Amino acid sequence: MTAPTNPKIKHSNTDVLIIGAGPSGLMAATWLARAGVPFRIIDKRSNEIFSGQADGLQCRSLEVLKSFSGSTFDMTALDSAWKMGNHMIEMCFWSPDENGQLVRSGRIPDTIPGISRFQQVVIHQGYIEKWFEESIKHFSGNEVHVERPYLPLNISIDETAAEDQDAYAVEVLVKDLSKDNLSQPEQFSAKVANGLYRQFEGDQEKFYANLSADLENDPNANTEDYEVIHCKYVLGSDGAHSWVRKQLGIDMDGETTDFVWGVLDMVPITDFPDIRNRCGIHSKDSGSVMVIPRENDLVRFYIQLKEVDRDPATKTDKAEYTGNVNDKKASTKGRIDRSKITPELILKNAQEIMKPFKLEMTDLHWFTGYQIGQRVSPRFDKLSRVFISGDACHTHSPKAGQGMNVSMMDTFNLGFKLALVCKGLAKLDILKTYESERLGVARDLIAFDHKLSRMFSGKPMIPNSKTLEEGVDMDEFHKAFLKGNEFASGTIVDYADSILVDKSNTEEPDSDGRAFSYFASKVPVGRRLQTNLILAQADGRPYHIVDRLLSDGRFRVLIFPGDVKAHPENLETLNKFDAYLQAKDHFSKKYTPVNALDNSVIDVITIHATNRHDVEIFDFPEFTRPVDFKGRRDYWRLYSGVGPTYHEGDVDAYEAYGIDKKKGAIIIVRPDGYVSKVTEYNLGGLDEVGNYFERFMIPQEGKVLPKRSIDVDDTDRFTKPLLAV
Amino acid sequence: MTAPTNPKIKHSNTDVLIIGAGPSGLMAATWLARAGVPFRIIDKRSNEIFSGQADGLQCRSLEVLKSFSGSTFDMTALDSAWKMGNHMIEMCFWSPDENGQLVRSGRIPDTIPGISRFQQVVIHQGYIEKWFEESIKHFSGNEVHVERPYLPLNISIDETAAEDQDAYAVEVLVKDLSKDNLSQPEQFSAKVANGLYRQFEGDQEKFYANLSADLENDPNANTEDYEVIHCKYVLGSDGAHSWVRKQLGIDMDGETTDFVWGVLDMVPITDFPDIRNRCGIHSKDSGSVMVIPRENDLVRFYIQLKEVDRDPATKTDKAEYTGNVNDKKASTKGRIDRSKITPELILKNAQEIMKPFKLEMTDLHWFTGYQIGQRVSPRFDKLSRVFISGDACHTHSPKAGQGMNVSMMDTFNLGFKLALVCKGLAKLDILKTYESERLGVARDLIAFDHKLSRMFSGKPMIPNSKTLEEGVDMDEFHKAFLKGNEFASGTIVDYADSILVDKSNTEEPDSDGRAFSYFASKVPVGRRLQTNLILAQADGRPYHIVDRLLSDGRFRVLIFPGDVKAHPENLETLNKFDAYLQAKDHFSKKYTPVNALDNSVIDVITIHATNRHDVEIFDFPEFTRPVDFKGRRDYWRLYSGVGPTYHEGDVDAYEAYGIDKKKGAIIIVRPDGYVSKVTEYNLGGLDEVGNYFERFMIPQEGKVLPKRSIDVDDTDRFTKPLLAV
Repeated sequence: MTAPTNPKIKHSNTDVLIIGAGPSGLMAATWLARAGVPFRIIDKRSNEIFSGQADGLQCRSLEVLKSFSGSTFDMTALDSAWKMGNHMIEMCFWSPDENGQLVRSGRIPDTIPGISRFQQVVIHQGYIEKWFEESIKHFSGNEVHVERPYLPLNISIDETAAEDQDAYAVEVLVKDLSKDNLSQPEQFSAKVANGLYRQFEGDQEKFYANLSADLENDPNANTEDYEVIHCKYVLGSDGAHSWVRKQLGIDMDGETTDFVWGVLDMVPITDFPDIRNRCGIHSKDSGSVMVIPRENDLVRFYIQLKEVDRDPATKTDKAEYTGNVNDKKASTKGRIDRSKITPELILKNAQEIMKPFKLEMTDLHWFTGYQIGQRVSPRFDKLSRVFISGDACHTHSPKAGQGMNVSMMDTFNLGFKLALVCKGLAKLDILKTYESERLGVARDLIAFDHKLSRMFSGKPMIPNSKTLEEGVDMDEFHKAFLKGNEFASGTIVDYADSILVDKSNTEEPDSDGRAFSYFASKVPVGRRLQTNLILAQADGRPYHIVDRLLSDGRFRVLIFPGDVKAHPENLETLNKFDAYLQAKDHFSKKYTPVNALDNSVIDVITIHATNRHDVEIFDFPEFTRPVDFKGRRDYWRLYSGVGPTYHEGDVDAYEAYGIDKKKGAIIIVRPDGYVSKVTEYNLGGLDEVGNYFERFMIPQEGKVLPKRSIDVDDTDRFTKPLLAV
Repeated sequence: MTAPTNPKIKHSNTDVLIIGAGPSGLMAATWLARAGVPFRIIDKRSNEIFSGQADGLQCRSLEVLKSFSGSTFDMTALDSAWKMGNHMIEMCFWSPDENGQLVRSGRIPDTIPGISRFQQVVIHQGYIEKWFEESIKHFSGNEVHVERPYLPLNISIDETAAEDQDAYAVEVLVKDLSKDNLSQPEQFSAKVANGLYRQFEGDQEKFYANLSADLENDPNANTEDYEVIHCKYVLGSDGAHSWVRKQLGIDMDGETTDFVWGVLDMVPITDFPDIRNRCGIHSKDSGSVMVIPRENDLVRFYIQLKEVDRDPATKTDKAEYTGNVNDKKASTKGRIDRSKITPELILKNAQEIMKPFKLEMTDLHWFTGYQIGQRVSPRFDKLSRVFISGDACHTHSPKAGQGMNVSMMDTFNLGFKLALVCKGLAKLDILKTYESERLGVARDLIAFDHKLSRMFSGKPMIPNSKTLEEGVDMDEFHKAFLKGNEFASGTIVDYADSILVDKSNTEEPDSDGRAFSYFASKVPVGRRLQTNLILAQADGRPYHIVDRLLSDGRFRVLIFPGDVKAHPENLETLNKFDAYLQAKDHFSKKYTPVNALDNSVIDVITIHATNRHDVEIFDFPEFTRPVDFKGRRDYWRLYSGVGPTYHEGDVDAYEAYGIDKKKGAIIIVRPDGYVSKVTEYNLGGLDEVGNYFERFMIPQEGKVLPKRSIDVDDTDRFTKPLLAV
């Protein structure tokens, strides 16, 4: 593909162009808005109708949404998820007893206790997108909103400029469709919103080709609605049928099964007693149902469909179909005819499965049908200039509530890296870690879904029965679910050694793959820092440590000097740190532009292990409580990790992190909350911290922040986006 | 006063007219908007500048703000207070040691542990007013906003119609000032916002008289900006110099002292170590300072002023001045000349008091000065038709952070009563309880402030010194503060026996005045129901019970049937309740309009004492899990009060409320969360509940909701305002 040459077309520049405004694209946009990087986000849809109606928010996603506002920062719309979503407390299993009667066969906590301060909630995807859009406006000072309907037509990378960090190396031709009325996918049923879109896959390429052909060949073409956007980076968050992915020539790997499921969002009228719990229901031989209670009175049902019309032309003869999905042969039975799937058909299947309980529906909100399959993209970027994320990288069955979550986490990983590179704070190299970190997660996800969806779709084994030779053992199924919930929570994602993660000071990985640090024996390096309470030295308020590590683009160096009263030598060490950290050639100053506040890039926080009543703030060196150019003191860099609280019980972050109160430790946390490195508490440890940043940060000596200036006269400075450039 | 007769003036009707849009008026407006009552709210100011800059939110105020949205209802702006406010954790006392040196002499928790799920926070009054205004728009469907600048000119009550519940018995003449530019009080200093308004007290009456005289006497008067509002009720929340109070001819009782204090809101530059804690600082002989750390980096200082210019004409010769404040003689030294109070003067006093610590200021936001006094209005209403609230009823020194809180609680008390009466659900008589309940609180407040402000302003006693004969004993002061914090939390307000509170089934009041129920030995009748966790039978989610008792205008009858598994007879009793509650002549149906949902007026909730895994939802009678006209079941009326939770520890609401798991109990809770009555768990107890409602509720047989219809097709019905008429 080449860029258009018609001289009448307008040209513009932006650092990052995001194509696709679903949760994945919106998360990237939120990061860039928060960090103050110039960007645009376009979507071909003219409104918020969306093809996927996800609803589950996992623990890690809730942690991340919260991290954009913390506990003291301005309230953002993203805080609403935890409040408004339906909290999932318990999962109930139902399966046939010895007589084939449906009985409750088990109960497990829906979220593993202690894994996070949040539990899974369920809330309509439409709310989440709305909250993201509000947050983007909030963080960008109303400068950025989703531009729609905008269609991308052409993308080209100037490969010779790809290594030049400041180059606008990518060109994208886009068309403003607002005058065209082309953008609405047709729906099968006008009466009820549904997910059965008539995809114009086959005609799509021709359609795009025609649009740009006219532009090039017709001297009288109307060029007004076209624009060439020159960007440093492009992100394709444009869904399972990603246009960007196709432009990069990447094919998905994966397979489609013969299992077909329907989905209903409605208010059930039923005497089934667990309808407000998440349930897995295996009937004797009518298939399975999954129940997901939602906000208000809605319940989502995933229902296995027994008899569905299929397209014989898409049938393959292979015993189990595996391979390229562009091959039109879908499975041994053939692709389903989605136009035959109606709410009534789906309900009928549910009624069979849930017998003898009654089930009728009212207030139907949405329905769809799908054939289970798992696909993953083997590559997530091209030349570290064009990236894909979310459904463009991985698709699977929706029942585990993973799709939207993993899609948001893709760009939560990429967003801060793009921001650091666009600002000239970090080297281009860090962008390579996006694929290396997220491709592994996508493959784990596919394997997880592959296993779980087959157990869910299989017939159950009848207890104490020898007549059924095959079948899914329900005890095994419950155990798989419990284990699966750990993965599904999103909290055990583990990033490997890379330019951004240094596992050198760790034990051999344990059976769960956790590489615990020598110096903080309960902190696995490469995973998100689990939160604990710490107490501000200045006012004694208990804070979740993660609320002090907000998603604002900064790295954090957490210094744990131990108990400075019981071990006065630890305080001496801390005093030595003061000079080290003030030195121009050490990390704290070296990577910070001269006109930025001192903790704008790397925020150093000290958490001691002495009861805060036994020490005074002025016992500690200046760097733990510095003053700014006006003499205003920053009181929020010094904490006690231990002690009683008046309202929240006893606190011991040292115990929780496995840090010795005599030896101490230093922990580096990435802007996305993952532990980069743990090292020892001494000057050598500080050198190690410096070496870590040396690998990818760009010295800023003499550099000033280029575009937006930091409002240094702002008393809100400790809570406002400091990295805004 | 008589109503204007000029025939050109426009006339309009509304149920309630609120005059004054400070926190007190806005709280009333929030109630009325939430309950769907027609009302208007006017303010003479053209924008949000306000003369009082309160900042403390006490526990009970936070509970009340939260009660307008709970944990599952739509997020409202009022949720922001707890998040954005500065949490006050610890109070530190500083006073002279034996050598006269300032030392930290004590530390106490700022909020008494266990008294509430919230702790005191500090946030600018401007935010609170903004959140109220947003909530009013939200609840009224954007129909109501504060109308400003509007000046009330004349008020008259038709006394012959005062007893007629449906009569628009009050007329208020108002003038829209938006074309006049008359409304801004002048400030002494244009440079920094301050509270030193030049009150036009003396000229006020003349000014008003002239305005309406023109209107009556001049045949060519411009009548366009005038309006006569006919209303059922008027609320004057118009501040310390209340126009409404003056129209009612009510004089304040009270006194003014010689103590003069200044206030600074600024960012301090200091080496005082407790600057981010609330502090009471008594210097040896330079006076006292109170430190209140606020949101962002701001700190509020209350500073005792030693030398202030006074107006000798206002001096009295009496040893201690006491009496009518309309008497212009203010105190033994005379009224201060407020124009002489500057930020520099206030700071200089603070520097003296806080020696040897350094104190400078930057980012000055606001300042003011005041002479300590306490005043209370002897009456809060006239003919139950015109009411006053907030500063119009009580003024005092601001240091205890009570003014805004008590003012909001005045109208939190009045608002639901007005709503019930305006809707024809309850009799006029309940309005008399406004004065009887709130006048006592106001008097307690005045006594509290009188004691505390004198201890604060007095010289400290030097430890082990016999030279100083008089002085405030610092230990006594700390104890008084700790005890005062209980009162100041707002959680121990106790409403006496009345038409709305029935203390018949209670023990003799204990030493703290608490009348504990026979049947719930830890529930004091007449006080707000302390929250505890309960578990929804349907999904096991732990809820704070108060989040199920939202401020939406409904009474609640909480049925505690005990452990229905251990005591099957308790389940039998519950089954008998079913028929009772379905009967037309019993309270549950009797007071509910025919076209309203069954729990729109009185919401019956059952909380049993059996582990929820040992019983099923369908073991319980229909009224605990009823279906609506579409067959949709309400799952949120049945809870377990006991049992383990996955994420929030063990729950035992029976133990917490002192309810026997064999005997059970029934608790009636008012729409404002106060316990009306506790009775026994049997049919006789239900009769007692009926007798309680009989005293003031109006039978609704055949009545339909008059104005707004309830949207019965709304799946959000369990969280939307049910009382919207």
